[in-house]
Amino acid sequence: MLFSSTNRDTTRLQSIIRITRAISTVNDLHTLITLLASETSKVLNVERSTVFLYNRKTDELWSYVAEGESNEIRFSADQGIAGSVFQTTKTIILNNVSDDERFNKDIDDTTGFVTRNMITAPIINPSGHCIGVFQVINKEGGNFRDDDAEFLQIVASEAAVTIENVRLLESRKRMFDSLIKALVISIEARDPLTAGHSFDVTFLAGKIAEYLKLDKDTSEAIYYAALLHDYGKIAVPDSILKKPGKLSTEEFSILRKHVQHTRIILSPIEFEERLEQVPVFASQHHERIDGEGYPDGLKGDEISIGGKIIAVADVFEALTAKRHYREPFTLNKTLNILIEGIDTQFDRDAVLALRQYFIDIGKIKPEEVPLEQDKNVL
Amino acid sequence: MLFSSTNRDTTRLQSIIRITRAISTVNDLHTLITLLASETSKVLNVERSTVFLYNRKTDELWSYVAEGESNEIRFSADQGIAGSVFQTTKTIILNNVSDDERFNKDIDDTTGFVTRNMITAPIINPSGHCIGVFQVINKEGGNFRDDDAEFLQIVASEAAVTIENVRLLESRKRMFDSLIKALVISIEARDPLTAGHSFDVTFLAGKIAEYLKLDKDTSEAIYYAALLHDYGKIAVPDSILKKPGKLSTEEFSILRKHVQHTRIILSPIEFEERLEQVPVFASQHHERIDGEGYPDGLKGDEISIGGKIIAVADVFEALTAKRHYREPFTLNKTLNILIEGIDTQFDRDAVLALRQYFIDIGKIKPEEVPLEQDKNVL
Repeated sequence: MLFSSTNRDTTRLQSIIRITRAISTVNDLHTLITLLASETSKVLNVERSTVFLYNRKTDELWSYVAEGESNEIRFSADQGIAGSVFQTTKTIILNNVSDDERFNKDIDDTTGFVTRNMITAPIINPSGHCIGVFQVINKEGGNFRDDDAEFLQIVASEAAVTIENVRLLESRKRMFDSLIKALVISIEARDPLTAGHSFDVTFLAGKIAEYLKLDKDTSEAIYYAALLHDYGKIAVPDSILKKPGKLSTEEFSILRKHVQHTRIILSPIEFEERLEQVPVFASQHHERIDGEGYPDGLKGDEISIGGKIIAVADVFEALTAKRHYREPFTLNKTLNILIEGIDTQFDRDAVLALRQYFIDIGKIKPEEVPLEQDKNVL
Repeated sequence: MLFSSTNRDTTRLQSIIRITRAISTVNDLHTLITLLASETSKVLNVERSTVFLYNRKTDELWSYVAEGESNEIRFSADQGIAGSVFQTTKTIILNNVSDDERFNKDIDDTTGFVTRNMITAPIINPSGHCIGVFQVINKEGGNFRDDDAEFLQIVASEAAVTIENVRLLESRKRMFDSLIKALVISIEARDPLTAGHSFDVTFLAGKIAEYLKLDKDTSEAIYYAALLHDYGKIAVPDSILKKPGKLSTEEFSILRKHVQHTRIILSPIEFEERLEQVPVFASQHHERIDGEGYPDGLKGDEISIGGKIIAVADVFEALTAKRHYREPFTLNKTLNILIEGIDTQFDRDAVLALRQYFIDIGKIKPEEVPLEQDKNVL
């Protein structure tokens, strides 16, 4: 079927409208690029579209989205038409692949697909670097035209911007996360006996959050708060932090101040909106449900969900770890202490979640950690 | 002049192609949104386009880009047609503004502009929040149609995605920066007498980088490296770090190890590619041009540009600050010590840049800090 050029433009405009809508509403990159590929196949009337991305470490192009192919396609970044487009960053229209010696038959041989004609456009990011290629194969009922290539380039541009934004955001997040981990490691290194504590607390707090089905943002805020909950210990002198014996009352009161320091240090950090609660969560891990905790003596739901969860994870980790003055407690003993402290020291839901987690992974039997139903009724 | 709908679609497709190209190549947000506004005015044949963004703190809409207006327009986010679209997130087509009592005449009264008709579309970010509105005013030769609104919504979507990406990247950067500052403050708090040192070194290193006309990425890497150069001191015990008197040889050798610790702590951080050199820059601030520095005894250009610059800024700051055992040196004396150390302890260019900076801001006269030309010839 033949369209007039203006009919074709209407179809293409509608397609770009759909693509733009998708970009502004779909959050998952792979879903989005898959949608770009299928829109492109439909509009250009081709058999399949493939998006290859460049892997710098292996110097290869690999199929991020390949319509009709379940296996990943992967080849050296200077091979075939795709490699050539990647290297030169020039679009290639090829209406008869056998005309071009750069065409790599191996992929057809492997996949069993027969390529007749193709357009391959570079995917160029806003900094001007080629990050992959967008390929459409086998136009039905005719040759590829220049305006097909123009359309493909537009979709490739949309893909480039989206991929690049996701990558930048992810690399900035990795930078932030790895900085936090580096500082937690460096601070815990002051006392070899507690090294690793914050990471273990973070893992357990994450498990509790998961069992309580908290939303993604709250869980992420708890993750950072758990990592940073003891950060304030940087303000506690070595003489107290590393003291091998028990602390005097005065020394203990200085040690307790670490939660205020955690809050003071973390508060000026401009967390993203969804992570705003991190300083609050982090500095409430010594509050108690009965109001007997510190620093603020908050009661019950005055304590944030993050504070309640980290408190449970923190005590669990401390009891099951070795200390200068005692051996680690068993899992059984520790969980029973936590259960004993429900509604006085600890939040009920957080303790039950942790108990359930250890039951589910087979580390303990329910009868070893009974719930005192009678007490709960009171 | 009347177009057929398909001719109009061709024009619109071409416009969206230009917009997409711009989004994938223009890095500055304001330039880009200005371009989106002018494309929109041209394609929809209107007198002017305005992009209002929402300011959460003041609960106002303000004109981020307003064609034909040099003054900022700013009003409460529930006022007028724009406010109504912002609140309801529904596009409004208004072919006769006097028909609608929500229309706010005040703005026309202030700007002297006469509004006849308009379309106002919400700018909705990928999380579904309305972040502003896109408004086109006074269509020439006729009424606005539904497909004009459709086009405007597409451009508004493009704007939304772009604005949101820039905001997310910036907020992630602020989070990273403020975390680094928080940790530098917390570490320096261990010794009140050196508190602020890293920030002063960072300021001076930045000035030197500026005078040496270093590129943006290198300057930014130097910024972070200068902030973090003494981070390794976290591994130095209080007894040495806070010792009021002079250190013994052994204590001094432990103190010197802080540069290795800086490197060890910073190396696992997954800095963005352009900041990869931060751990290297930070851990070379005690190297000397003549190879007599530490930890690696590197010579001349074996030392990174960042290491050379931070070394100069670090010594400058240390000498001009008060220490337990001495009063601060004068600017004059300090700069002459640095000049004396050119080509032995310090990099020539870095010292000359710092000298020039203090001359330029009028803090010192050239004749007070003479260069030993004779020595330089040797």
